[in-house]
Amino acid sequence: MANDFHFTSDPGKRRIKGPTGVISIQIRKAKKAKLFRGKKLHGDYDIKVEQAEFNEINVVAHANRTCNVNMQVLRNGTKVMRSFKPDFVLIRQHAFSMTQNEDFRNLIIGLQYGGVQCINSLESIYNLCDKPWAFAQLINTHRKLGSEKFPLIEQTFYPNYKEMVSMPSFPVVVKIGHAHSGIGKVKVDNHSKFQDIASVVALTQTYTTTEPLIDSKYDIRIQKIGTDYKAYMRTSISGNWKTNTGSAMLEQVAMTDRYKLWVDTCSEIFGGLDICAVKAIHGKDGRDFITEVVGSSMPLVGEHQAEDRQLIADMVLAAMNQSAEKEANAPQRPTTIQPSQGAGQKGEIVGEPTKNGAGHPPQGCLQYILDCNGVAVGPKPVQAN
Amino acid sequence: MANDFHFTSDPGKRRIKGPTGVISIQIRKAKKAKLFRGKKLHGDYDIKVEQAEFNEINVVAHANRTCNVNMQVLRNGTKVMRSFKPDFVLIRQHAFSMTQNEDFRNLIIGLQYGGVQCINSLESIYNLCDKPWAFAQLINTHRKLGSEKFPLIEQTFYPNYKEMVSMPSFPVVVKIGHAHSGIGKVKVDNHSKFQDIASVVALTQTYTTTEPLIDSKYDIRIQKIGTDYKAYMRTSISGNWKTNTGSAMLEQVAMTDRYKLWVDTCSEIFGGLDICAVKAIHGKDGRDFITEVVGSSMPLVGEHQAEDRQLIADMVLAAMNQSAEKEANAPQRPTTIQPSQGAGQKGEIVGEPTKNGAGHPPQGCLQYILDCNGVAVGPKPVQAN
Amino acid sequence: MANDFHFTSDPGKRRIKGPTGVISIQIRKAKKAKLFRGKKLHGDYDIKVEQAEFNEINVVAHANRTCNVNMQVLRNGTKVMRSFKPDFVLIRQHAFSMTQNEDFRNLIIGLQYGGVQCINSLESIYNLCDKPWAFAQLINTHRKLGSEKFPLIEQTFYPNYKEMVSMPSFPVVVKIGHAHSGIGKVKVDNHSKFQDIASVVALTQTYTTTEPLIDSKYDIRIQKIGTDYKAYMRTSISGNWKTNTGSAMLEQVAMTDRYKLWVDTCSEIFGGLDICAVKAIHGKDGRDFITEVVGSSMPLVGEHQAEDRQLIADMVLAAMNQSAEKEANAPQRPTTIQPSQGAGQKGEIVGEPTKNGAGHPPQGCLQYILDCNGVAVGPKPVQAN
Amino acid sequence: MANDFHFTSDPGKRRIKGPTGVISIQIRKAKKAKLFRGKKLHGDYDIKVEQAEFNEINVVAHANRTCNVNMQVLRNGTKVMRSFKPDFVLIRQHAFSMTQNEDFRNLIIGLQYGGVQCINSLESIYNLCDKPWAFAQLINTHRKLGSEKFPLIEQTFYPNYKEMVSMPSFPVVVKIGHAHSGIGKVKVDNHSKFQDIASVVALTQTYTTTEPLIDSKYDIRIQKIGTDYKAYMRTSISGNWKTNTGSAMLEQVAMTDRYKLWVDTCSEIFGGLDICAVKAIHGKDGRDFITEVVGSSMPLVGEHQAEDRQLIADMVLAAMNQSAEKEANAPQRPTTIQPSQGAGQKGEIVGEPTKNGAGHPPQGCLQYILDCNGVAVGPKPVQAN
Repeated sequence: MANDFHFTSDPGKRRIKGPTGVISIQIRKAKKAKLFRGKKLHGDYDIKVEQAEFNEINVVAHANRTCNVNMQVLRNGTKVMRSFKPDFVLIRQHAFSMTQNEDFRNLIIGLQYGGVQCINSLESIYNLCDKPWAFAQLINTHRKLGSEKFPLIEQTFYPNYKEMVSMPSFPVVVKIGHAHSGIGKVKVDNHSKFQDIASVVALTQTYTTTEPLIDSKYDIRIQKIGTDYKAYMRTSISGNWKTNTGSAMLEQVAMTDRYKLWVDTCSEIFGGLDICAVKAIHGKDGRDFITEVVGSSMPLVGEHQAEDRQLIADMVLAAMNQSAEKEANAPQRPTTIQPSQGAGQKGEIVGEPTKNGAGHPPQGCLQYILDCNGVAVGPKPVQAN
Repeated sequence: MANDFHFTSDPGKRRIKGPTGVISIQIRKAKKAKLFRGKKLHGDYDIKVEQAEFNEINVVAHANRTCNVNMQVLRNGTKVMRSFKPDFVLIRQHAFSMTQNEDFRNLIIGLQYGGVQCINSLESIYNLCDKPWAFAQLINTHRKLGSEKFPLIEQTFYPNYKEMVSMPSFPVVVKIGHAHSGIGKVKVDNHSKFQDIASVVALTQTYTTTEPLIDSKYDIRIQKIGTDYKAYMRTSISGNWKTNTGSAMLEQVAMTDRYKLWVDTCSEIFGGLDICAVKAIHGKDGRDFITEVVGSSMPLVGEHQAEDRQLIADMVLAAMNQSAEKEANAPQRPTTIQPSQGAGQKGEIVGEPTKNGAGHPPQGCLQYILDCNGVAVGPKPVQAN
Repeated sequence: MANDFHFTSDPGKRRIKGPTGVISIQIRKAKKAKLFRGKKLHGDYDIKVEQAEFNEINVVAHANRTCNVNMQVLRNGTKVMRSFKPDFVLIRQHAFSMTQNEDFRNLIIGLQYGGVQCINSLESIYNLCDKPWAFAQLINTHRKLGSEKFPLIEQTFYPNYKEMVSMPSFPVVVKIGHAHSGIGKVKVDNHSKFQDIASVVALTQTYTTTEPLIDSKYDIRIQKIGTDYKAYMRTSISGNWKTNTGSAMLEQVAMTDRYKLWVDTCSEIFGGLDICAVKAIHGKDGRDFITEVVGSSMPLVGEHQAEDRQLIADMVLAAMNQSAEKEANAPQRPTTIQPSQGAGQKGEIVGEPTKNGAGHPPQGCLQYILDCNGVAVGPKPVQAN
Repeated sequence: MANDFHFTSDPGKRRIKGPTGVISIQIRKAKKAKLFRGKKLHGDYDIKVEQAEFNEINVVAHANRTCNVNMQVLRNGTKVMRSFKPDFVLIRQHAFSMTQNEDFRNLIIGLQYGGVQCINSLESIYNLCDKPWAFAQLINTHRKLGSEKFPLIEQTFYPNYKEMVSMPSFPVVVKIGHAHSGIGKVKVDNHSKFQDIASVVALTQTYTTTEPLIDSKYDIRIQKIGTDYKAYMRTSISGNWKTNTGSAMLEQVAMTDRYKLWVDTCSEIFGGLDICAVKAIHGKDGRDFITEVVGSSMPLVGEHQAEDRQLIADMVLAAMNQSAEKEANAPQRPTTIQPSQGAGQKGEIVGEPTKNGAGHPPQGCLQYILDCNGVAVGPKPVQAN
């Protein structure tokens, strides 16, 4: 199955599969430690992968850096709860959207609280939960590099509907709140329509941005997974102004230094994005307009998705190895948190700190990866990606 | 000042004034009981009026039907709290809008809980807090009377964005959620725009209605205050499709039996509306389309506003008189609620139940009216009424 | 299975089964019209029942009183959508709770908008969506009957945390917002704890009531299904102050005139409750304290649940028969709504109005009943009912 | 007046005053440029300070790094709008609380978007808007330094009420959501109460933390303003378990290396906190428990508030000077953003980019500082600070 993730340091021997939509990965106690002997993973560990969407899991995290994930699993038609302590989480799902039931920031906070390692970093995921907040980083980059090198689209931010009074020119694209896949995005042709939309923003009670509608030839997407770069061009066929809606033709195009500069500078925001993509519009006038940076929740596209998934899996393993080595080389530290909230937990945190979460013991440790790779949601008529 | 309300049973002698925007009325202990001697008000009461907007008041209500209103008053530049027990409330402000800080339904519940008499009835105000819920009443009426007599506009209701998939024809008017003064109202010209708007409704997380855009000659408003009927015609000058936006010409027109039937049947919903208006659109093809019924929060319009205010004031006085008489003739009933939550309140509820809220004593009673007459809020560019 | 509903006018021949938790009922085109020949149902109809929880359905309603229900069905492990026009809906699930994802009021509005007949009436269900609003009705009843006949518990209502300043005595029960099964209910022992809870109510941003904690001997529940009355006594075994939490013993007790008066007066609120129950606490001092009225979402309890379900089913059938007869005897009325939003819908609403929803044709009509019987949700530790 | 802020590089000559509660500072076009000649401020600028609370301002920000602040000012009893472009903002008010009308994160995003310099950094303010997210940083520090050096309180995080099932020991402090001044904080004595509170958390629909209740001797607060350190000890007099509630005695205590380490490591989180404080509890058993880090919204306490204010003002001036020098020395860069949204804004962004926002011209520039210093809000009974 082309859509699988391959989490193995020994390709061909071990592959953990799952549907594209939502994949979760879990690393378990070494039953076959030999499988990994001599591999990059420091020490003898076996890896077990759990898959879930955010809405299927819950988290309890402790200040002693333990983090329990409770996962609802459908087994033989009945829902059962499974509980484990993840060592690593790969997040491929949007952590937040202002649409119904799409706010999972509490889980992001919980994982960070529990000290769980994550790709992308939880810090970056938290800070990508307000698109204009991420765009502000692009504005900084634009200011440093200039429009020639970093052609950022002109955009205006309104904290609420109240200042949405006038627009110098039309058509404009109004993006309301924080959502994905074309949700909350409206093309506005004239002042009267703009007033109508402002009156709707009043109901959403959130922020808005406006930007000029670019007469687009094609969309550009520059992605970076670790040190792998790929560039894609998407040409709309159906002619929908939301170019991610309706049918479109996707082609890989050559990576240029220009593109590389874009994605490299963008990958530095919020402490660094292991996985990211820059989106831009190429206008019919030949000019580019950078519109957005996205993190590890970006959907994979094109012919090389299998390769991309492998790159992501390798990156996860490398990060885990690095962390395990660091742990092994670190001097024993007193990590006992005080005062314990009773005997039950004391047992977990006293004496053998390395048995918990991030404290990797030399062998036989429970290790989990959780990979949340959500699918885009939206109103039915919008065939979004 | 032409905009004042006149709450007096002896016109010319007593008038309580206030700005149009927000008027509150309070009826106090009789200092000059003679003023009312021989008047309709049963017993000797003096009336004191308090004015406030909902956002300036708070309520505490008890099951023994006492209701304390705490009101923030700006006195000499500093905010002070004033507390009183209203006997009657006149509500002229919208009790709910889905825009920020416009949800006052908790206060409506509190007043009802406290057994405070109100115009319009609190039951009707509560039930008018979802426009499609009110429209469902008009659908019933339409079903009974038929399209000839009660030409209701064709409208479709969506509980959320999910079913907003297709529309048979355009342009349509999309009304999102429950708001006023053109807020959340958008004209949609084609399917692509409709998809855009559906994607925004996803963010509002509320319901929507759609109706055909009527090529309008003028708007109609039939109002009924007690037994007084007036009909108005409003012709847009600025040409904004939101006919209540921009400049318009307002003319009183003759009440017809047709109009009277409209407003009379509408005034019967939700247990009866003392004050109400029916809104309709008169199309260029000569057909009428009833669109909405509004209650006592309707703004007064036209030349006869002073008269309308007097009608409202008289209606309030009549209702209070009627209630006072009823109280006086009622046999003593045991209303002690049990068990008391302690000595403090016991004093209030035991022994002299008639001293509380609605239990009017024969004389010397505290009596208050509270009139909330809010002004429309909305995004700046919309000159709404 | 003891928990099934039996919707049939010919017991033994036809029974539609379903789990207790969620039952939906649908009435379909007559395939076996003879089954019902000579039965109470006016004309020859077959009945098909659909079961669903609110979160599995969506509604689109039109002003011409058609109402489409879209239902998500799990068939062979994949989700499919099924669409139908219900003629009748039986609602056995809470329409609203302030906990996550429990607001289905939009669907209630949609069903009313679509003119769908319902048990209990949609009007009553809408008005039961704020418990203090319902309690205000009990206050009215208490005022009319007096404490002797209608011993209502003393309660105080706060629209928000701001006035939660002082309490005359402790312990009190604080009920926050509108929820079920013990959610949002806290016992408060002293002033310091009360301040703590007030500070939490600030976060909930909703209303609160307080009432004295009754030293309870047992709970009372008087239920009325149509004209059937039953009284139950529930004695807590585990001793949890939330008597609906933990283990308890349930016994049927004799209906008294006193109990009958309670439930009869309560069944008159909000236009009448076909199914309802009055809850009360019987204190150790021998006094009763009425605390709440609940509607058709009440869970069935005790040994006679099968009988209760049959009573409900019979009531639904009787209501449908009555309505069908009324339709058949009604003169033809012009119900065409204007202007049509295009040809597609025109076909549905012109010419043959009786083919739609509530307009029952003499024979061969599609008829559906939808029964939503939800299960209580809540935090894990609370074994609520 | 002892509570004023002094924004001047020439003490004694220039002081801008305002009430403690909310102070806003604005720096205007140089009218008296000589005043600053020879001062640290690079170039000749005059400084004008504007004061406001968040709820009095709104922001519009452009990708070309201009940022307009619209401020509602009460002048002679009528509200007027004033508009200006701030060069610097000092934020002394909480940017977010889950209580009503206390979410100003949209403004924080707007200021960042507009490239406005700020103390504390906007990045840190944004990331301090979820207390458990900030606490996760302290957990990291604790992990690095160990319990001896950094005695962090043991705490557990729940993303929602669902996992609030069991607690190992009591009493615990439950902190619900993100709020200030004791809001959402409850002491829980036993399992039954914990269940009650969990049922209330279900209504708040947010996260919770629990921590053991420390038998406290006094509270500790180590504050750091730039390079100035102060330590305070607060001993409760009234004995309220919320030590910031009720009367208390505040004493300055000696800065120790231990305290300095605490606040220094904490001041490094989220890219650095110019102003911050660490809060801890000193137990009766002699042990310390670090509970929280707060940023520039911390209220000033103790005898040296005037000095603290001066320190803050000096820090702001120094930061502005540094920024102005940097600007002056920077080479001209092409910052024109494309494509312009029409002629109106083009004028602002083309040709003279340095006239806008952060692009400081060598002289005559408009410069503003906005200082938001909010007062704590909460339920009446809580005398919070």
